[in-house]
Amino acid sequence: MRLDKFTKAGVCISPTARIGNNVQIGDRTIIYDNVQIGDNTIVCNDCVIGEPLNAYYSDIECYENPATIIGRGSLIRSHTIIYAGNVMGECFQTGHRVTVRENTKFGSHCSLGTLDDIQGHSVFGDYCRLHSNVHIGMHSSIGNYVFIYPYVVFTNDPTPPSDICIGPTVGDFSQIATGSVLLPGVKIGKHCLVGAGSSVTKDVSDFKLVVGVPAKVVKDVREIIDRETGEAHYPWPYRFSRNMPWDGMEFEKWIENTGNL
Amino acid sequence: MRLDKFTKAGVCISPTARIGNNVQIGDRTIIYDNVQIGDNTIVCNDCVIGEPLNAYYSDIECYENPATIIGRGSLIRSHTIIYAGNVMGECFQTGHRVTVRENTKFGSHCSLGTLDDIQGHSVFGDYCRLHSNVHIGMHSSIGNYVFIYPYVVFTNDPTPPSDICIGPTVGDFSQIATGSVLLPGVKIGKHCLVGAGSSVTKDVSDFKLVVGVPAKVVKDVREIIDRETGEAHYPWPYRFSRNMPWDGMEFEKWIENTGNL
Amino acid sequence: MRLDKFTKAGVCISPTARIGNNVQIGDRTIIYDNVQIGDNTIVCNDCVIGEPLNAYYSDIECYENPATIIGRGSLIRSHTIIYAGNVMGECFQTGHRVTVRENTKFGSHCSLGTLDDIQGHSVFGDYCRLHSNVHIGMHSSIGNYVFIYPYVVFTNDPTPPSDICIGPTVGDFSQIATGSVLLPGVKIGKHCLVGAGSSVTKDVSDFKLVVGVPAKVVKDVREIIDRETGEAHYPWPYRFSRNMPWDGMEFEKWIENTGNL
Repeated sequence: MRLDKFTKAGVCISPTARIGNNVQIGDRTIIYDNVQIGDNTIVCNDCVIGEPLNAYYSDIECYENPATIIGRGSLIRSHTIIYAGNVMGECFQTGHRVTVRENTKFGSHCSLGTLDDIQGHSVFGDYCRLHSNVHIGMHSSIGNYVFIYPYVVFTNDPTPPSDICIGPTVGDFSQIATGSVLLPGVKIGKHCLVGAGSSVTKDVSDFKLVVGVPAKVVKDVREIIDRETGEAHYPWPYRFSRNMPWDGMEFEKWIENTGNL
Repeated sequence: MRLDKFTKAGVCISPTARIGNNVQIGDRTIIYDNVQIGDNTIVCNDCVIGEPLNAYYSDIECYENPATIIGRGSLIRSHTIIYAGNVMGECFQTGHRVTVRENTKFGSHCSLGTLDDIQGHSVFGDYCRLHSNVHIGMHSSIGNYVFIYPYVVFTNDPTPPSDICIGPTVGDFSQIATGSVLLPGVKIGKHCLVGAGSSVTKDVSDFKLVVGVPAKVVKDVREIIDRETGEAHYPWPYRFSRNMPWDGMEFEKWIENTGNL
Repeated sequence: MRLDKFTKAGVCISPTARIGNNVQIGDRTIIYDNVQIGDNTIVCNDCVIGEPLNAYYSDIECYENPATIIGRGSLIRSHTIIYAGNVMGECFQTGHRVTVRENTKFGSHCSLGTLDDIQGHSVFGDYCRLHSNVHIGMHSSIGNYVFIYPYVVFTNDPTPPSDICIGPTVGDFSQIATGSVLLPGVKIGKHCLVGAGSSVTKDVSDFKLVVGVPAKVVKDVREIIDRETGEAHYPWPYRFSRNMPWDGMEFEKWIENTGNL
């Protein structure tokens, strides 16, 4: 490569930030007060890490920026804005132009897609994967190994506008397909599949496929047959392992080894 | 705060721009010709105010930038692009990465969410609040105290593609919930509620709740019961006042005082 | 114009990039290795052309950037990111904040809207027009004169998550209206119209209007009557020509002249 991405032009780092070993920071990226970045992390160009909260604008003199932690081995692509007060586990990844508001906690190995908009005050488990342009309203709770596809929206106000804010809850291994809306406070169990374009208005129990506006239970996901192979595809971890902790071994084996599930 | 947001690095301001008192302008923000920014306004980093129209590219020498007005007390968050030829009333706010095309007029106290895409040639009343990722097609008309939730789209071409462009109209106090699409030219009355994920294909009269694809009238919004309190929630201004002009007093009292409604 | 858009501040161009005659490059725009930009092209501020692929991050020393070609007469608006390995035909246009991942080929005269997210490995014909906030999943195939409206998503994984990736196919002249989702592998014929908010789960034959979740055939598009004129609107090229190659002549004439269709 003749033109390097990391020329250090316009990089600003607060004296109170703690930057790990072997960290690369792209041009014009700003690291605000009280940010910690783990070893071997890459933050690309034009990012903002530790973006000051709204209180900053009302009292710039006295404002104290909350701590922000980016785990080791992370890769944060260009134009991403991560507010102060967030905790990202190790091997966190983002696409471009991601926004993450304050007080959100991600487990390890989570990845966010281009244009994702995480409104803050939410919790994600490990190995969650959000594709492009997902919107997670405040006070959402997402388990482990959850995949969320493009243009999904998690809402939180049952009678808009109001001061009530209750986000959805999604159990481990569940899949929320493209363009679905989860209504405020709905609870989706483990290993569920929400079909594309659905509006989920009621709780969904484990292993259910739901589809439609409003979403209705169609069948047990274990009855879904793969068109190519004629075999059952779900529970998916037996048939998909890319970037998952059981990659390179049988899922069955991984369960035995880890005592998980 | 040890690392200030406003270091003036890379700021460019046209000699024809008029900047009010006590205005802060973030790093790398560009203020083009004939922009007026009111007192006590904050424009954060990487914004573009008064973005030249398309005609600029065809004749850079002779191009004259239309006037752009940002009212006093506004807060424009980072990476927002506001085209020339717009008028924003006082206390205008944006999230990050908002785009507003030319010839749009906002009343006072309006706020736009992260990633909103306002296509221009539209009118908004006072105290409108658009959440993240709302798309407003050209020639839309929005009243006062209207809330629009994430991923709502206002369309304007009844037989795409064509040269007809008739946007939707929304009356005062109406709420357009997440992921709804308003078809070209539909008229939504006052105090309506469009449920999440709806496609509104026909006009909606005052106080109606509509839901579905296509949206159908379900009931009068005054019959909607709050699950928590067991009481009616709508008309919402009696029960919600945050950032509204009747904040700190009874809505009834505000109506009496102002003669509004 | 007193404040010029093209001051050359912070522009970085790789020594291996080939820039045509009369090309303008906006402030802080980065042109990476092996990019070719055709004559009379404008690349606005804060763009990235030839963004290095993921492999760059694993081996910065040895990484070789694939060629990227931007055709002559193009206009790329601010904050657009075009990955290496893409080919754009002449007169390519983008709105703001567009992202185009690698190995995508656009014919001539294509335009992408603000916030479009093209995931790569796809093919577009000539004169395609994508409005704002369209998401095209990998391995999609789009014909000529196809219009895609805001918040449309092309998906590609029939049993998420899996390693199968089969995108939709859309025939010449078809129109995909706002907020529709195309399910993996669906084939849409020529001159079709997919109504707003639809989920297309099955193939659609030529000249069909489909609407709904799931989308169903409603009628032949040639039976759709324009509300204003009382005449048939489709096939639309007889009644719409803006920016199309038959602009300024009868479509019938253009067909005769070119032998197209």
